[in-house]
Order: sequence, then C-alpha cells, then structure tokens
Amino acid sequence: MALEPVLIAGEWRQAANPAGSFAAIDPSTGKTLPEAFPVSGTEDVAAAFRAAADAVVALRAVPVENIARFLEDYAARIEAGADALIERAARETGLPQSPRLRSVELPRTTNQLRQGAAAARDRSWCVATIDTRANLRSYYGPLGGPVVVFGPNNFPYAFNSVAGGDFVAAIAAGNPVIGKANTGHPGTSRLLATLAAEAARAAGLPPGMVQLLYRTPPDVGFQLVSHPSLGATGFTGSKNAGLKLKQAADAAGKPIYLEMSSTNPVFVLPGALAERSAAVAKELFDSCAMGAGQFCTRPGITVVPGGAHGEAFITELARLFAAGAPGTLLGPAGATSIAAALDELVGSGARVVAGGHAVAGDRAAFEPTLLRVPATTFLAKPHALQTEAFGTVNTVIVADDVAGMTAVAAALEGNLTGCVYSDTTGKDDAAYAQLEPVLRGKVGRLLNDKMPTGVAVSPAMNHGGPYPATGHPGFTAVGVPASLLRFAALRCYDAVRPHRLPPELADRNPTGKMWRLIDGAWSQQDIAG
Amino acid sequence: MALEPVLIAGEWRQAANPAGSFAAIDPSTGKTLPEAFPVSGTEDVAAAFRAAADAVVALRAVPVENIARFLEDYAARIEAGADALIERAARETGLPQSPRLRSVELPRTTNQLRQGAAAARDRSWCVATIDTRANLRSYYGPLGGPVVVFGPNNFPYAFNSVAGGDFVAAIAAGNPVIGKANTGHPGTSRLLATLAAEAARAAGLPPGMVQLLYRTPPDVGFQLVSHPSLGATGFTGSKNAGLKLKQAADAAGKPIYLEMSSTNPVFVLPGALAERSAAVAKELFDSCAMGAGQFCTRPGITVVPGGAHGEAFITELARLFAAGAPGTLLGPAGATSIAAALDELVGSGARVVAGGHAVAGDRAAFEPTLLRVPATTFLAKPHALQTEAFGTVNTVIVADDVAGMTAVAAALEGNLTGCVYSDTTGKDDAAYAQLEPVLRGKVGRLLNDKMPTGVAVSPAMNHGGPYPATGHPGFTAVGVPASLLRFAALRCYDAVRPHRLPPELADRNPTGKMWRLIDGAWSQQDIAG
Repeated sequence: MALEPVLIAGEWRQAANPAGSFAAIDPSTGKTLPEAFPVSGTEDVAAAFRAAADAVVALRAVPVENIARFLEDYAARIEAGADALIERAARETGLPQSPRLRSVELPRTTNQLRQGAAAARDRSWCVATIDTRANLRSYYGPLGGPVVVFGPNNFPYAFNSVAGGDFVAAIAAGNPVIGKANTGHPGTSRLLATLAAEAARAAGLPPGMVQLLYRTPPDVGFQLVSHPSLGATGFTGSKNAGLKLKQAADAAGKPIYLEMSSTNPVFVLPGALAERSAAVAKELFDSCAMGAGQFCTRPGITVVPGGAHGEAFITELARLFAAGAPGTLLGPAGATSIAAALDELVGSGARVVAGGHAVAGDRAAFEPTLLRVPATTFLAKPHALQTEAFGTVNTVIVADDVAGMTAVAAALEGNLTGCVYSDTTGKDDAAYAQLEPVLRGKVGRLLNDKMPTGVAVSPAMNHGGPYPATGHPGFTAVGVPASLLRFAALRCYDAVRPHRLPPELADRNPTGKMWRLIDGAWSQQDIAG
Repeated sequence: MALEPVLIAGEWRQAANPAGSFAAIDPSTGKTLPEAFPVSGTEDVAAAFRAAADAVVALRAVPVENIARFLEDYAARIEAGADALIERAARETGLPQSPRLRSVELPRTTNQLRQGAAAARDRSWCVATIDTRANLRSYYGPLGGPVVVFGPNNFPYAFNSVAGGDFVAAIAAGNPVIGKANTGHPGTSRLLATLAAEAARAAGLPPGMVQLLYRTPPDVGFQLVSHPSLGATGFTGSKNAGLKLKQAADAAGKPIYLEMSSTNPVFVLPGALAERSAAVAKELFDSCAMGAGQFCTRPGITVVPGGAHGEAFITELARLFAAGAPGTLLGPAGATSIAAALDELVGSGARVVAGGHAVAGDRAAFEPTLLRVPATTFLAKPHALQTEAFGTVNTVIVADDVAGMTAVAAALEGNLTGCVYSDTTGKDDAAYAQLEPVLRGKVGRLLNDKMPTGVAVSPAMNHGGPYPATGHPGFTAVGVPASLLRFAALRCYDAVRPHRLPPELADRNPTGKMWRLIDGAWSQQDIAG
C-alpha cells in the first residue's frame, strides 16, 4: 500500500527510506483508518532543514504584508474546507463535530491565524526600542532558522503543528515552520498542510515556509530539536516526551518551549462552600468533563476545607461524576494512561469515590472519576499525588482549615492555572490574603470564581507557568502578540547608517501606527529628523 | 588563620564546614594577598537558600519604593567608599586605578544601580497588559525564588555578583540575590557586599536580600544553579564553566542566562580599506588593547579582502600590535590560557605576525598578538579557528573577495557583536547588502564603522546574542529595563476581583506615569471606571 506523502520544500512527496508506517485509529470504534502514514527518518529531516534554510534566506526579501496575507488566506481556506476538516478530525479524535469542532475550535483557529496576520502587519510585537542619543536601535526579529512545532493530540486545529498557536506565532514572527504532526490525527494535519501550502504559494512565500512530517523514531525526533540550523522548538504534549526532547535541545543550545502538564488546582474557600457549594460543584464538574477532560487546563485537583460543608461539596461532586456520561477519549491509549495514573494516585493514598474504570467495549472511554485524599496524606507524597490523569478525573484534597489549604498550595508543582472560589460578600478575604501569595507563585494564570478551561486568545493571556507546567516561566503559548516573542531574537543596531536600518527601526514609522519605545516613551510617531 | 566571613541572612559569619580556602593574587606582582577566603560547602548553600526563601516571603509586603531607595543608597555608599574599593580592585585585578576603575567602571556601576532604581520605581518594565473586555490582566513579576549571580573576572564592579548588571536586574525585578563572587577579586566583592548589606538594612529590605559566597567546589556550584527554591541564574564567564552549569540548571528546569564567549568579528570592506586603512587599523588595535583585551566585546577576528590594500592593513596592524605595551592580565592564569588558545589557532593553520609570547617576570602579561589565516583555511576548520584568546589577540582572516568574506560570516558561531566598516561615500553598499543578512543572524549587536568594546547601558542595548555567545537569543544582560525580564515570571490575573489586583494592574495607574498596554494601545492613563 502506498504511504501518504510528506510535505517537504513545497512538494508532497514520498518519505525517503521511511522507518516504518502507522495509521490513525477512530477512538469511537477502535477501528484503524485506511490511510498509512510514513515514519520519517534522517533523510526527510535533512531535506526539510535544507528547504527551511533556503526559506530563511528567501524571506529576507519578502515583505511582512505577504506573511499577513498568507495567514488570512489560510484562515479563509480553512473555512472553505471546513466540512472535510471536521469530518476527518472527528474520525481521528472522537471529538464531537458540533459544537466542539465546528463552532468552537475551528473558529478559534481561524481567529488565531487572523490575529497573527494583524500582529505581523502591525509590527508592534517586535518591541522596537530606539535610543536616539546613543543611536542604538533594537527589536525582535526572526530566529534565522525554522521553528519545529510538535502538536498535541487534544486540539486537532487550534494547537495543530501546521495551523495552531505555535504555528501562527512562529510564522507571524517571520520564521518557517517544520510541523511534526500529532500521530493521533495525521489525516487532519495533512488536510491542513495542503491548505497551508496552497496559501503560502499564493502569497509568494518560499516553498520551505510550511513543511510537514507525521512521525519520527525517537532519535530522529532528537535530531529535529537539536539540528544546527534550527531556530527553536514549540512542543505541546506529555511531560515524559517533553522532558526527553528538552534534554536534546538543551544540549545543543537550542531554545525549546514546552507545554507539558498541569493539574490546575481549584481552591474553594470556606465562605464559598457555605454560600454556593452546589453551584461550584456543578461548575467544577462541567470544567472537568469538557472535551472528556483532555484539556491542559482541566482542573485535576480541588482543595477544600473539611467539615460539614466540605463533605457536602464532595458528596454533590461525587453525584455529578457518577452521573456523568463518559466522553470518547482521543485515542485507545487514553484509558490505559488514565488507569495507570489512577493506580499511582490510589497507591499513594487517594480513594476513589466515583467512577474508576474504563468503559467496556471498542470505544475509548473512561468513567468520570473522583478521588479524595486528606491534606496530610497529600503533603507526605505531594509528587505522586500530583500525577496527571488526562481525562475527567479530579482529586479532592481535604484540609483542616485555610492554613492546611495554604500548605497544600506550597507543595504544588508549577501549573498553568490556579483558581480560588470565595464568598461574594468578602467573608473569605482574609483567607484569600493568606492563600494567594503562595498560590500566585505556583501558577501562570490565577482566576477568581471561574474555571480555567477557557483560554482566551488575548494579549493579556498567559498560557504558561512555572516548570514543569512549561520549560520557562516568562513565556506564553497563547495570546498574540506575546506568544511571538518565543520565536524571536533580539537584534541591536549600533550606529548603523540610516538607509541600512530595517523599516521597523527607521526614523519614519513604517506603518504610521506601529508602537515603538522611543527614548523611554511609547509612541506611534516618526522620529523628528 | 581565620577565614574571611561569608554573608548569609544579613550576617557576616564564618563559613560552615568550608571545603577549603583560597586567596587572591596581585597579578602585577604575582604575590598572594593576605586574606584567606573560604570555599563554601552545602551547608552555606542551604543556609543561603533558606534566608532567600524567607526574603521572598518578606518582600511581598515591601513597597517597590524601598527597592528603589536601596539601589540608590547603595550607589551613594559605593561613591563614598570609592577609595577603598578602587585600591582593593586594582590590587586584585591589576586594572589601572585611573581612568579605568575610578572614572569609567565605578561610575558605570553606580549609573546602573540608579537606572535599576528608576526602573523599579517606574514599573513600566513589567509590561502590564490589560484586556478590559476579557477582564484579563498580566504583567511580569518576581520569580518567587532568589537569583544566583556568578560574576566574571574582568569587571570587578560593573558585572560584580553583588553590584553589577545581573545584580541590578534581579533586584530591580524584586528578587533576592545570592552572589557567587569571582574568585579573582573576593576582597572587592566583600567590600561591595558590606555596603549592599548596610543599604539593604537601611531600606528595610529582608536580611536575605543580598548574600555572598566566594567560591564553591564544582558539585556545590551545580547545587546553586539547580536548587529547588532557586528562581534563576545569571552567569558571566568562560564557556567551559558556563556549559557545565547550564547542564545542571537545564536538568532541574531552572532558567540560566549565560554570557560565555564571543570573538566579535570586524569586517572591513574593500572601500573602507582603500579609503582609511590606517585609521581603521588604529581603531581596531585600540579596541583590542583596551583592558588588556579582556572584554567580552573585544574583537578577536578581523575579516578583510586580500590584495594590496589588505596586505597594507595587516602590515600596519602588525606594527601597532608589535609596538603595543603588554597590559597586566587579570590573573596569572591569563597568560597560560592565551598561550593555549594560540596553540590551538596556530595548530589549525593561523600564523603569528606579531607578538606570540608571555611576558617574562612576575607580572601576568602577554604580548599583543596578531595572527593571520587565509579564509580557505578558516572555512576548513572554522570551529578551532574561533577559539577565544582572552587578551590582546586578533586573527585576521584574509578572503579573496566579498563573497569569501560572506562565506566566513556564514561559518561564524553566535557572537555578541559584529562590526562592518565601509566606505563613507557608499561605494561599499552592494558589498554590505551581500554581507549584512548573513552576519546579522550571527550577532546580537551589529555596528557600522565603530568598534564594539563600549557597551552603553541603554534600553536599546543588546548585550546578548545567539548561542554559544549566550544561552538564549532573546535576552540582553545589559540595558535597563530589558535586562530585568530575564529575572521575571509572567503572571496573569483572570477575572480577579479588583481589590485583589496588584497595583500595577489596577484600573488606576499606580504612578500616574507607568506605561501599560491597555486594549492594544500603550498608555499612561487610568482605566475609566
């Protein structure tokens, strides 16, 4: 059987000496889908880097307007091709066509592409900084090498290696992308890359601007993240895979941005429990169950004070979990992985109070599962009891009081998010003041009275956080234009003659609207000659 | 003999179970100075991290105004104590008291401290970003753990672990600092830390705000950069030491910013050679000889076209190098290290055309040394021929033409700086257009007709560059406020109640002047209620 082609140097071609092949699986039936995709070896990687290096050179003569047009045209092509994309992604991931894929994720993806286009055109993202007295001018520019993007299994569009947030950020910052598809949805990735390649050609971008490989053996993956001509890597996926890639990238001195794992703790303060326990339980369950719990921002830990209110909250939550319909997981490995995580949690002292088993049959599914554990037990084994179970699974940690809840916060690993629910009339303010400084240091995004599962694409978003949620606490994977800075190098021009400056640093504001930091003040003006 | 005390938790105390002791050496005489300093073991490291963790907690209640006052008061104390500082640093480093230490480096250091104070007070550095519609607000805040600073040997004040650029950046961003003194000037570091501790106490900062160790065995150094409660590390020093520390920090998921090595290539285009060969040679020699060539931005490679003009340039340069007085090196190891680097360069095909030997006697010194090598030889062994010789040493690479010069640029490793000299009337513009895009990707700061040795403390400075000049191409070690972002974490507030927001993110502008990015526009205004 012929293997599906890879996209290298603007051409769909057969993988050179593939190291094997694989197929996607429909998680709703357990059946293997017909197309066979190649596992790429070193030759494909070398060819992709050669084409990317050519693209880096060619891009020097390409106006940013073409990059913006590419992103917009690509968004339009995704909308025009939505039916095929939705059908394919639903088959490969088990995610509902509607509303999830059609009304939520696809519009989010095209919105990101258009925000990236706006950022590329606007150019304010590059933080042009000009010291007129010293005649020093600096800004963020492309890395000078391609960005390799590893997409996760849980967002076939919005985090796809050739369409998602890292892709948009890398392209908008002026870098070519080598996409490493998630092996769960290779067909969706192929459809997207087809549209991307067409849009890139139409916009006059070089053939190596967008490339796609589906899978590599581990050692070839290490080559991807450590290649001498690489700019940087963006990775979203498991901590296990992420840390191995990080080791290879670090040894080569190549930046790698990792979004790896997060238990997204939710703290419910005593007053909130007294005031609206059932409502919080409902919000929490809905947030845990969304997308069958396979969101990086799904709450995996809840921290409550014990006593009558705490017990009532857990009882209500257990009722919701027990009554919840098990969603289809993204792949057959999902249930095995959840079961292994539960073994670790239960083996460390947590107790299952709802669910706990895989759903029998061909469909990949696991019962919504609630566990509980005393804070004292958690504090004795904080590492094991933060094992991420990627599904509708939540562990309620029961503390004696707010001091105990704060001690739990102090024992948390780095997380993407942390939520605090408190009484609406201010009764919890003292407790909040005790807890917040500790929790603040553990999370990238702190929420009040709100679940973390929605990640708005906003300039003020932080989809990042302290290690091991990510690899660096200063960067966000979501939010334009901040996410672009991951894929940019700081470039300074010292006494460079005016006609040799890039337009972003010239006296004349290149768009008339670009924000630049001129002699300490942000301005959209030209510099007086 | 009693050992000099370390500074831990605000107290000068004897090192606990020191792993040994060492003394500084006066490089102008080769004589050991009288004071003995301890080599700290794990107990000192643990105690310093405990005090730093306490400081992180205490700092939550300290207004930024106190941090600003501390930095200003510290600068004033350095000025008041200048005589003792200058006498001590001159003895430990061999650097001239005047003008270098008194009129250049000390004022630069106090200027950096005052710029840090202004940045802390102004708060614009933290890039407060507010999306009023989504009610998302984010900014950069302290790391939640101390910053360990390793100072280099070549700037006893301006890059000192308890007074220099990394120190200022870490403190101004709100983090405590654990200084690891350079072992070349422990006495200078002790004097500075004494002033810093007094100023910190006077400003009401916690006792763990500034701490000082002098030296550690390598394994204890790895503990410093990988400690669980560490925020990040700033390191300036050798590539060899930096890469080992990077490995330990990377494995622990701890950010480390390294400024390691750079040959700072200077390209002299044909027209510039024809126009002002002797003047460029003079500028180049002066830049190479400044501080006995021990600057991270000292030009180590010059690239010229061959032919009559090129040969005349080399002849003039050789004359200047041969006539140059050998400056005193920072320590006795300096001459050995230069000799080893020359062996590598000569063994790889470079030829010595001036100098080449250590100066006989007790003073640490090496003759100004010029080498030459054909571009074809360089391109055959580009790695070995970029070996850094930390002194007044320069290798002239002779290319056939501009294409050959560009090929040399393409074979360069990452550098802090790169300079291009060109004809003043525009005759070199085509050559510049050919060379610049290649060189641009290899350097953090690109200069025209100017040597790189001066590093202005400006918001538009980039004292950084691609690996292995530094560990990350997106950050600068010099320049306030940009250098602060290395020591900051991105913190997002999602629907957090208004009275719980940090002042930087409240509707009301906390200073009336702080720049904030509100709904896509930079503003110093309040947000309308």
